[in-house]
Amino acid sequence: MKTKTVKGMNDYLPSDAEIRDYLQSVIIDTYKNSGFEHIITPIVEDAENLDKSEGGDNLNLIFKVMKRGAKLQKALESGDTKALSDMGLRYDLTLPLCRYFANNRQNLMLPFKAIQADRVYRAENSQKGRLREFVQCDIDIIGSKAPECEIELILTTAEAIRKIGIGDFKIKINDRSLLRAVIEKIGFSEESFDSVCITFDKLDKIGADGVRAELLAKEFDPETVERFCQFFSAGKITMEDVRALLGEADALANLEYIMSSVEAIAGDTVKLDFDISLVRGQGYYTGTVFEIHSLEFSGAIGGGGRYDNLIGKFIGESIPAVGFSIGFERIFAILKDRGNFKIPDGKDKVVVIYDRENYVAAQKKARELRENYDVTLCERTKKTGKQLSRYAERGYSWFYTEGRDEELQPLN
Amino acid sequence: MKTKTVKGMNDYLPSDAEIRDYLQSVIIDTYKNSGFEHIITPIVEDAENLDKSEGGDNLNLIFKVMKRGAKLQKALESGDTKALSDMGLRYDLTLPLCRYFANNRQNLMLPFKAIQADRVYRAENSQKGRLREFVQCDIDIIGSKAPECEIELILTTAEAIRKIGIGDFKIKINDRSLLRAVIEKIGFSEESFDSVCITFDKLDKIGADGVRAELLAKEFDPETVERFCQFFSAGKITMEDVRALLGEADALANLEYIMSSVEAIAGDTVKLDFDISLVRGQGYYTGTVFEIHSLEFSGAIGGGGRYDNLIGKFIGESIPAVGFSIGFERIFAILKDRGNFKIPDGKDKVVVIYDRENYVAAQKKARELRENYDVTLCERTKKTGKQLSRYAERGYSWFYTEGRDEELQPLN
Repeated sequence: MKTKTVKGMNDYLPSDAEIRDYLQSVIIDTYKNSGFEHIITPIVEDAENLDKSEGGDNLNLIFKVMKRGAKLQKALESGDTKALSDMGLRYDLTLPLCRYFANNRQNLMLPFKAIQADRVYRAENSQKGRLREFVQCDIDIIGSKAPECEIELILTTAEAIRKIGIGDFKIKINDRSLLRAVIEKIGFSEESFDSVCITFDKLDKIGADGVRAELLAKEFDPETVERFCQFFSAGKITMEDVRALLGEADALANLEYIMSSVEAIAGDTVKLDFDISLVRGQGYYTGTVFEIHSLEFSGAIGGGGRYDNLIGKFIGESIPAVGFSIGFERIFAILKDRGNFKIPDGKDKVVVIYDRENYVAAQKKARELRENYDVTLCERTKKTGKQLSRYAERGYSWFYTEGRDEELQPLN
Repeated sequence: MKTKTVKGMNDYLPSDAEIRDYLQSVIIDTYKNSGFEHIITPIVEDAENLDKSEGGDNLNLIFKVMKRGAKLQKALESGDTKALSDMGLRYDLTLPLCRYFANNRQNLMLPFKAIQADRVYRAENSQKGRLREFVQCDIDIIGSKAPECEIELILTTAEAIRKIGIGDFKIKINDRSLLRAVIEKIGFSEESFDSVCITFDKLDKIGADGVRAELLAKEFDPETVERFCQFFSAGKITMEDVRALLGEADALANLEYIMSSVEAIAGDTVKLDFDISLVRGQGYYTGTVFEIHSLEFSGAIGGGGRYDNLIGKFIGESIPAVGFSIGFERIFAILKDRGNFKIPDGKDKVVVIYDRENYVAAQKKARELRENYDVTLCERTKKTGKQLSRYAERGYSWFYTEGRDEELQPLN
């Protein structure tokens, strides 16, 4: 039998699981504390739903579940490879949420404030060290176009990050329609929007010169490219820069309302930063997008945005929605890298040592101690010192030897 | 797009998820409180491991994950259906635990006391209402043959069941070797053991006469069958009955030690009941087996046993192990059926009503209230009465209207 896990999926040791349990409970509790409701959906979704969704690159990364029995036989005879599978493992939590909303709408309170914290699967190239099974933690508000939804998602997510103990973070914010308006205003045609955005998304990596070179290579009009680069090469673009170019715009007023409200409510505990270069990958975003960055980690530790058209695909009626996802695996990595993680306010651990003849008394003592401590029992071995030091290494603080000690003894 | 879940897998509404979260946290916390350690393993396991395991009937119920890319192409060309899949969804938590132990042994403390609480998958016939995705909660002790392991599993599982609030339960206990010895003593040949057990396992359903008829139909020697039925038709078999037949036996002394210790430690809070007819389905059990029954549910709400040979298949060295699993889905069904589930010691829920012009003040009030309450915000509609009664239905106890109320108002 093979003892390794399958590629890209992890076993978690007790010390890892402890961090993950803690993280998940802080996140979910913070979300519930702000009136969001936890929901649970299956890990397996219908193959057609997965295929028809706007999952972008993730569509190529779906693990497919094979048909069974007579249906598999029929599919094999048909020679159609696609017919071999009827289901797949979900690659994110947004598609399941939209299906869930469509399926359970009559039992949900609108606007629906959902929490999901669960596993997703992607057949990533594991040579890059990417996980194929990982956890996402999302909150979403479904059924309202109001900018108060964005404000609530930002405040609640920031509160969760703060409670986890990641102090130094900021949240970038943008509106996709704003970037679109800028690109159009500068003179690109509407159909070139996506292509320009893809190049522009690399600004952080390749700089303004790189963006210019790539746009020219794509054979856009050199004068338009020049105007575009001029606008962006002046350093950080402010909302005033955008307003100077576009005049007043709904998206601009909307962003300003969100940013000023968050500041009025949360002061400097939540740093919001307008960044017109923020695009976010998913094809389904329609308006506001955001992303959290921490000094402790290069790359985003969370992100999200508004997707007003996705649920309509299930319901045949336009239902606005907006979501914010915390990068669970990245935050887990940050906490793990810090080392010596100890659960805040966790119970002290005690080991009760027994000999077989006093086992019953030792168990009774353990049951009494469990009111205030986490307590394990261990039969005495000849090398008691070594035995105790193993428990000390595992985070145990106290021991008690049945038949000898009257009180708990400290473990060093 | 399809709005339904895939067959046999469930969406859980917020009220359901609340019960499931509560259940899971009580179970895991109780286990941790007794010194067990939580571990996490992937939902996907290697196909060969799954196939070679002793999963009994469950082996036919494995959801298989298809190969991808060039490997899939090669498998298709080979014409070998089995080659199409390289992984599968796990059907229980015992196989992953054994693989995990083999993979991480050097980082674990022995005996290893593991907690698992996670999803498993079986392609059951969903017409019978069986779930294809469900949660199991297991504790296992690996690396010790001592009967204190059984005692600890029984005490800890009983404590979890008690904390969940299921008062009326008893735990049946047996040792497979004892049943085997009885069957042999009565005169069945060694090779007929499994077949006799399969029939005998139906005693509860078909009665002594049914057992007799089925054994005769299987063409066992009529006199032997008669002796067998004589022994079992006298009513409940006690340990003394077994001792009278077999004389002293290790398994008998072992069971008596377990039962008398549990009684000495837990008194009448844990009812243990010797039941020689208890077999449990899994092929891998080698000694003690147990099963929990509650008056609130027909059928078992948990079970387990000793499996001293399974880990050896990974490690090539005999490692004893014993486990106890709580039937999460059955307990969830019991709590749900009771209706009006309320989390013990949960925070009261408050809805803060705002108008857009006082949104910032309302958010500030909400943040202040969150110290003691779970608080959601909601924009005022024209039908405030109706709005409030919807929150009351959802378990909210208080409301607060920004700009009007000075204190929380009760929701009826």
